[in-house]
Amino acid sequence: MKIDNSPPRGTRDLLPDSVAVRDHVLARISEVYHRFGYQRIETPAVEDIRRLQGGEGGENEKLIFQILKRGLDDVAAGGKLGDLVDLGLRFDLTVPLVRFYANNHAALPSPFRAFQFAPVWRAERPQKGRYRQFYQCDIDLIGDASVLAEVELIEATTEALDAVGITDTTVRLSDRRFLSALAGHVGLAESEWAGFFIGLDKLDKIGWAGVRAELVDKRGLAEKSVDEAQSIIEGLVGLPADQVADRLADAVPTLADEVVTDLATTVGCLADLGRSRPVRWEFDPTLVRGMGYYTGQIFEISHPGSSSSVAGGGRYDRLVGRSLGKDIPACGFSLGFERIVDLIPQTPARSALAVLFEPDVPIAYALERARQVRAQGRETTVIRRSGKLPTQLNRLEAQGHSGFVHLREVLTDGTVETERALGSAK
Amino acid sequence: MKIDNSPPRGTRDLLPDSVAVRDHVLARISEVYHRFGYQRIETPAVEDIRRLQGGEGGENEKLIFQILKRGLDDVAAGGKLGDLVDLGLRFDLTVPLVRFYANNHAALPSPFRAFQFAPVWRAERPQKGRYRQFYQCDIDLIGDASVLAEVELIEATTEALDAVGITDTTVRLSDRRFLSALAGHVGLAESEWAGFFIGLDKLDKIGWAGVRAELVDKRGLAEKSVDEAQSIIEGLVGLPADQVADRLADAVPTLADEVVTDLATTVGCLADLGRSRPVRWEFDPTLVRGMGYYTGQIFEISHPGSSSSVAGGGRYDRLVGRSLGKDIPACGFSLGFERIVDLIPQTPARSALAVLFEPDVPIAYALERARQVRAQGRETTVIRRSGKLPTQLNRLEAQGHSGFVHLREVLTDGTVETERALGSAK
Repeated sequence: MKIDNSPPRGTRDLLPDSVAVRDHVLARISEVYHRFGYQRIETPAVEDIRRLQGGEGGENEKLIFQILKRGLDDVAAGGKLGDLVDLGLRFDLTVPLVRFYANNHAALPSPFRAFQFAPVWRAERPQKGRYRQFYQCDIDLIGDASVLAEVELIEATTEALDAVGITDTTVRLSDRRFLSALAGHVGLAESEWAGFFIGLDKLDKIGWAGVRAELVDKRGLAEKSVDEAQSIIEGLVGLPADQVADRLADAVPTLADEVVTDLATTVGCLADLGRSRPVRWEFDPTLVRGMGYYTGQIFEISHPGSSSSVAGGGRYDRLVGRSLGKDIPACGFSLGFERIVDLIPQTPARSALAVLFEPDVPIAYALERARQVRAQGRETTVIRRSGKLPTQLNRLEAQGHSGFVHLREVLTDGTVETERALGSAK
Repeated sequence: MKIDNSPPRGTRDLLPDSVAVRDHVLARISEVYHRFGYQRIETPAVEDIRRLQGGEGGENEKLIFQILKRGLDDVAAGGKLGDLVDLGLRFDLTVPLVRFYANNHAALPSPFRAFQFAPVWRAERPQKGRYRQFYQCDIDLIGDASVLAEVELIEATTEALDAVGITDTTVRLSDRRFLSALAGHVGLAESEWAGFFIGLDKLDKIGWAGVRAELVDKRGLAEKSVDEAQSIIEGLVGLPADQVADRLADAVPTLADEVVTDLATTVGCLADLGRSRPVRWEFDPTLVRGMGYYTGQIFEISHPGSSSSVAGGGRYDRLVGRSLGKDIPACGFSLGFERIVDLIPQTPARSALAVLFEPDVPIAYALERARQVRAQGRETTVIRRSGKLPTQLNRLEAQGHSGFVHLREVLTDGTVETERALGSAK
């Protein structure tokens, strides 16, 4: 009988080489975020199901792995399924962060710089490169209302990407307040804005014809409004940095001064940053971001090697208030850890020494010999000799050993076996 | 309306100081295990519910968080609860490891040295210091049938504990084969052995009177057998190292030679190890270990600061076979990560610099100043001046800042504000 030992559908096992690359990427990113003062926190994988279904998660709320209450009777007689469930696995790190902040704010610094690296779970239809358990890597700055937060998050995250060798990136920047003002300016009622954003968000996938079809034909928005929005947006694509703020103010006269000033500040700071290292960015009037909770500037980072963005975030000044009872300004940036790992060349850098011992060499001797090498800090494995020596040596090399010591007999004259290199000719 | 923002019952939020200590402990342990050639792997948090309930988990199988199938109808009409569930959260790292090995063995080295650090979930009754989500830290050596594995696991784990400053430990060693031979020797039928082990396992909690009551009165074992077992066990407590093997062979004549030789080898290797650094150990004939799957030597590490053991493990030569279809020798050691963290003094070593800027200083200037400090590798936070300066400085110090730069105005004459120390007098 053949037993199926694969992990549950849509999940995967991570083998040593793959984990080594991931740990390397995480260490580099952590170093950078640490230098910016972000401190790692951790929340449980499970959250109250009502919190997860509270409306902040958008489409993700349909993908929750739901957990059965403990101590139920064996037979679920005629009950509502929802009554059997009290917990769920988190689908992102923002919902838990907001709960964490509301629960612990008295013990946290203000402003609070949070760093999270943790798995999330979504019961999506499994497909290539998409998993039901995957890691997110978020930084959030809670308690600063100014674009200091936005700029710092962008600076830290582009620096983190640089640190793992992902340099060919572009930061795309917009502002939800601009999109709202635009929607109002072209005559859309406030109740139509959410639909307008959802349609516009699909622009890079379906083009203007598709967006117009969705907005006018499907959602019933006025054709004239959509026409005007398209025209304004197209006029704002590819603006030079020093013209962004002014051109936006011209294009949407109802735009609040604050929005214009904020954009000018962010753009100015990014220009400053660009003097210390190359940072490519653009104002992208078509950028929407999926979640409903954004209230200010929004941003994504794209890379030519990844069809979707490698990072995304924005300001969400009214989300913490829904848990805490009073609004606290907040801004976050989430790195798509799995996408980043996919962009990194998978070159595990193991360089272990194998202490290879023949059957008649006592275990104690082999262990002592390994201890000596290890004391110098070298990764050392103790391995029994078996099969043909060249075959075993090839195998050891393939497993990341760069050298070996071959113990044939106990040397009692004070000499030690010398290390020999594996694959040094390559 | 007051919103309850606490994490789900029995779980907890980990704040920055606490995470910093945990990360420090993990880094030290990982370094040691890495030097011994253990490679980190990762499995999904969820496993097939039938696998989790397969009988390897003992009491833990009653504590599984069960996950509802996706796409069920809203009403669970009269069905069995079990039919609604297909996944569960893992309750340990051994069941997933065995599946992992069976699934990926063709791509893994032999022997395979696995390191795991990951959360597990158990729906235990919440109590002080016990959580429903907690971390385990396991090393396993799969594919070596000799006590090389046992000795290496003990060496690596005591070294890992040393590395985090936990030195006052004692390794307790026994062998399931000895316990089985003893049970047979005193006349217990093989069907009675499991009950005998379970009763004996409680000795340190309920004493011999309690164990006798459980074995004779409750389980109906022959009083004469229990008497004789007690007498043999008591005669084997506190044996000098060089007498363990011989005295065991004398006490239980039916003990296989192999068991005696293995014990002599382990004991000899531990004595060797003791010459390079202090390792306290003892043969403990009362040691049982909870799980049913052990087949050879078993071991625990105790520490005076912890009422339960800080690490435990043993050989399980027939567990991999149940998934793989053929037996592979294996041995593992699991560190109680949470207990270890509880034994470590909680002294976060943050030493950040605060760039403190007055409201009229432009954000760009503050960010640029922070960039300069950060370029030297220092953790640097940018913080807005607010309230009374001494109060804010005290707060910064409490948050782990050791110095600050106070930006009052933009210095255009080429000078920079100098760093001032926080709390340097303490």
